[in-house]
Amino acid sequence: MASVLLAVFVNGKICKDPNMVSADDFFFPGLNKPGNTSNAQGSKVTPVNVNQLPGLNTLGISLVRIDYAPYGLNPPHTHPRATEVLVVVEGTLFVGFVTSNPADPNVKNKLFTKTLYPGDVFVFPEGLIHFQFNVGKTDAFVFAGLSSQNPGVITIANAVFGSDPPINLDVLTKAFQVDANVIKYLQAPFM
Amino acid sequence: MASVLLAVFVNGKICKDPNMVSADDFFFPGLNKPGNTSNAQGSKVTPVNVNQLPGLNTLGISLVRIDYAPYGLNPPHTHPRATEVLVVVEGTLFVGFVTSNPADPNVKNKLFTKTLYPGDVFVFPEGLIHFQFNVGKTDAFVFAGLSSQNPGVITIANAVFGSDPPINLDVLTKAFQVDANVIKYLQAPFM
Amino acid sequence: MASVLLAVFVNGKICKDPNMVSADDFFFPGLNKPGNTSNAQGSKVTPVNVNQLPGLNTLGISLVRIDYAPYGLNPPHTHPRATEVLVVVEGTLFVGFVTSNPADPNVKNKLFTKTLYPGDVFVFPEGLIHFQFNVGKTDAFVFAGLSSQNPGVITIANAVFGSDPPINLDVLTKAFQVDANVIKYLQAPFM
Amino acid sequence: MASVLLAVFVNGKICKDPNMVSADDFFFPGLNKPGNTSNAQGSKVTPVNVNQLPGLNTLGISLVRIDYAPYGLNPPHTHPRATEVLVVVEGTLFVGFVTSNPADPNVKNKLFTKTLYPGDVFVFPEGLIHFQFNVGKTDAFVFAGLSSQNPGVITIANAVFGSDPPINLDVLTKAFQVDANVIKYLQAPFM
Amino acid sequence: MASVLLAVFVNGKICKDPNMVSADDFFFPGLNKPGNTSNAQGSKVTPVNVNQLPGLNTLGISLVRIDYAPYGLNPPHTHPRATEVLVVVEGTLFVGFVTSNPADPNVKNKLFTKTLYPGDVFVFPEGLIHFQFNVGKTDAFVFAGLSSQNPGVITIANAVFGSDPPINLDVLTKAFQVDANVIKYLQAPFM
Amino acid sequence: MASVLLAVFVNGKICKDPNMVSADDFFFPGLNKPGNTSNAQGSKVTPVNVNQLPGLNTLGISLVRIDYAPYGLNPPHTHPRATEVLVVVEGTLFVGFVTSNPADPNVKNKLFTKTLYPGDVFVFPEGLIHFQFNVGKTDAFVFAGLSSQNPGVITIANAVFGSDPPINLDVLTKAFQVDANVIKYLQAPFM
Repeated sequence: MASVLLAVFVNGKICKDPNMVSADDFFFPGLNKPGNTSNAQGSKVTPVNVNQLPGLNTLGISLVRIDYAPYGLNPPHTHPRATEVLVVVEGTLFVGFVTSNPADPNVKNKLFTKTLYPGDVFVFPEGLIHFQFNVGKTDAFVFAGLSSQNPGVITIANAVFGSDPPINLDVLTKAFQVDANVIKYLQAPFM
Repeated sequence: MASVLLAVFVNGKICKDPNMVSADDFFFPGLNKPGNTSNAQGSKVTPVNVNQLPGLNTLGISLVRIDYAPYGLNPPHTHPRATEVLVVVEGTLFVGFVTSNPADPNVKNKLFTKTLYPGDVFVFPEGLIHFQFNVGKTDAFVFAGLSSQNPGVITIANAVFGSDPPINLDVLTKAFQVDANVIKYLQAPFM
Repeated sequence: MASVLLAVFVNGKICKDPNMVSADDFFFPGLNKPGNTSNAQGSKVTPVNVNQLPGLNTLGISLVRIDYAPYGLNPPHTHPRATEVLVVVEGTLFVGFVTSNPADPNVKNKLFTKTLYPGDVFVFPEGLIHFQFNVGKTDAFVFAGLSSQNPGVITIANAVFGSDPPINLDVLTKAFQVDANVIKYLQAPFM
Repeated sequence: MASVLLAVFVNGKICKDPNMVSADDFFFPGLNKPGNTSNAQGSKVTPVNVNQLPGLNTLGISLVRIDYAPYGLNPPHTHPRATEVLVVVEGTLFVGFVTSNPADPNVKNKLFTKTLYPGDVFVFPEGLIHFQFNVGKTDAFVFAGLSSQNPGVITIANAVFGSDPPINLDVLTKAFQVDANVIKYLQAPFM
Repeated sequence: MASVLLAVFVNGKICKDPNMVSADDFFFPGLNKPGNTSNAQGSKVTPVNVNQLPGLNTLGISLVRIDYAPYGLNPPHTHPRATEVLVVVEGTLFVGFVTSNPADPNVKNKLFTKTLYPGDVFVFPEGLIHFQFNVGKTDAFVFAGLSSQNPGVITIANAVFGSDPPINLDVLTKAFQVDANVIKYLQAPFM
Repeated sequence: MASVLLAVFVNGKICKDPNMVSADDFFFPGLNKPGNTSNAQGSKVTPVNVNQLPGLNTLGISLVRIDYAPYGLNPPHTHPRATEVLVVVEGTLFVGFVTSNPADPNVKNKLFTKTLYPGDVFVFPEGLIHFQFNVGKTDAFVFAGLSSQNPGVITIANAVFGSDPPINLDVLTKAFQVDANVIKYLQAPFM
């Protein structure tokens, strides 16, 4: 546990014997390696947050690398505690986020989208549902900063249709206004 | 715009002529009236945040009343900027929230649920997907505090299947691993 | 101590074995029961903060139920770390708060008051002296949200005239500009 | 209004034409002059916060000088938004603060006191009722830092017995458990 | 000015007509282009903060791309309001930061260094002096996240030896314990 | 370690047996004694932060006394986590701070300076390089508040030219655009 608090020491707080802190406490290697995208979504997020890099503790920031096979998708998700700002390194991505519910119930949530090319930067504000989709013919990857040392991720499909135990059928049929068979069909890939 | 800043004045900041501030700037009536639950979900959220009550500005808190017809549902949603703590006033509610993605991709998001009766308090941590479902035979209602003067709401079904414009079919079919007809079927109720 | 940190785990931090966290860590029952108002003030505050409900830890919010007998008073007090926003469930309350000292020493602190009925919402900004008084002929009660998991309460009469040890007579006679007999008379009910 | 935002510019935000910002925006003179203690309490607070020194804006700190005639008192008060840390420059002060209400209603709020001499430092935690009393035979003065650019001050006697309009007699007689004549007697000096 | 507040609207605050907000408010292109390193230091920082990308407003994060010619240096500097976390995309960098003054004046500030290769991540905690030096034979570049939408940069050499007007000679000779000629020699490149 | 958390208890958190907390936990003596200025800079900072005074923990503020012999200098330094606001008690000080890098690389960092006399207050915004220089013929001293219980100090000359191990010669020669002999000459006083 003490090692998680190294950054605090460096900033002057007494969390560890100073002689035991080293540069390695602020270091994490390997983000040059493409993540393994051989999965149903064709994408892979490689996080570098306080769980991987203890020197980030108390400092309010973390990084990720995201890889996308052709036609790969980082599916709609939220970060409950962070804004994400992304830069495309390789490939062509179609990205978007959906605004929170408008005050007027007759107005729909807005979807903002953009096709991004290498060098393009895009912001996904804190807590909003967003996605990235590889619309090019080659692999793609990005780096992104997140405004928390422990941002969290909630993949909508997994959390809604693949939780343990499952969300009750009555809740899901009413929420999505479909019958139970459709919900069971939706749950199948995540069970 | 100035009126939104009243609370700041009362705390000593110069935002409005002091002679113009009154108790009414810190007041909002009507939470004794049941919300109209004649809608597809059978529930109604009546918010009292900085948009309704300018005296909340800068103060980091707001309230809601939520009404549920029998079998009514406040469907799975998140607050991008707030934790919610709820107290049941009348009725019987089945409530739950889903944790964020575990570090191990082979472990599922956990669902925590509880059946609540009048006087029961439950916490939905910031940014997590949660719901409340009226499992009693009578109307139900709750009051809840939220840890932001402007917490925001993202109803999952509406944001994912009912945004304007819709999220692209390719994104949704891949995210939910179903074919386009199922997605169109899911979108229909929110169009 | 570990149990106080449950909420942190659910948000993704490593504070407890995940298998040991359950819905009960986010639950507290009993706010349907009226507090016992058989006391000198005729009121009773029932708190639900991090001391009662460990799942609130780090989440910046808590709740209270306050009961008032007819003519019962929640006497002038402050919350050193929270704003309070209250909704009347039953009864008629005369409520108020006093602003901080004006810059001009010849201008008095302002008192803002309002008579509240069921469904009325009122805000008491952080750190300001406020009170609620049951001016109806029946019992009254409210629920309120507070913008801290540990808001604290300072009842003015108890803190000024009933501390242990008492504040020195010389301080109190000069502060209130009365003689020692009056101060002793004021201290008596709180000794 | 723009001038209140100078500090923001210096930290790199665009709030004012850079050519118009000068060292004087971060300067305030005169704290070498004793405050005029010819008043009922025999003390005088000279604040240097964002209202006097616009360069403090957004920076979360301010200063005060407090002067005390012999037997002078800075009467029991709170700062709704700040902790105070004080250093005695001249004189002998008896100081104290009262803790917030204990969880057990049968336990009293604790008073912590100390007699301070030149060079002594003392902390008054955020929102707690505190006072300083000159128990020496000479004038005394202190400097203090406060953890807000706009900390606010609530003098208990003035806010409770001298507000405009007055707090209702019924509230005060019940809160202090004395009859109306005593309350009127207490209100007289502050009317 | 209004455009700087776009992100606030998207999160539900009323800062701009919703119909005027578009995806472009969250977009900034061009980070694929190497910065021009034809300068004395052989390095170039290309920032993407709230000044370039208004959608970052209120969101507490920003990005930079930094390019280094062979032997190029991002010279010792601080960010007064941000931690930086960097990932090497191309090249070999020798990086380091210096801790704040130890409590014991006889103990020196510690320098932590590391040689970084592509994919390596390194953290520079808030406010500490740090640098990156291209020790490879080819161009290098990194992306970095910073924990503020407006982090600020203070290049030590420029701020100390190249300010307008210059810091007084007496201050600099004493601070660095050298004679005036050395200081003038140090100032020359930055004048 | 427990003793560092005393303030938390007093504000109502369970960090220590209440019976063990006393006024001394909020007290620190001795700031009336001039610091020993018999050193190369002719100045001495005496800090009172959470390391000296545990009652400051979590409260976001601290104090220092700074003494200056005639011609004494508190050399250019930053506080990585705090703004400083200073009041001159005795003497005449020439003070200044340097703004962060302007957006336009052809515009220099600005130096703001002021000569201060007793009673003058001056603000050094968070993270900016600043200094104080005794330009009078007598000893001088100030008190200052800092907006953190653990502000940190980075003396530029020591951190850049006196770290352990030293910053590499190649980095320093390039950063300051001088040859290695000049750097070695600059390092000598701090080795």
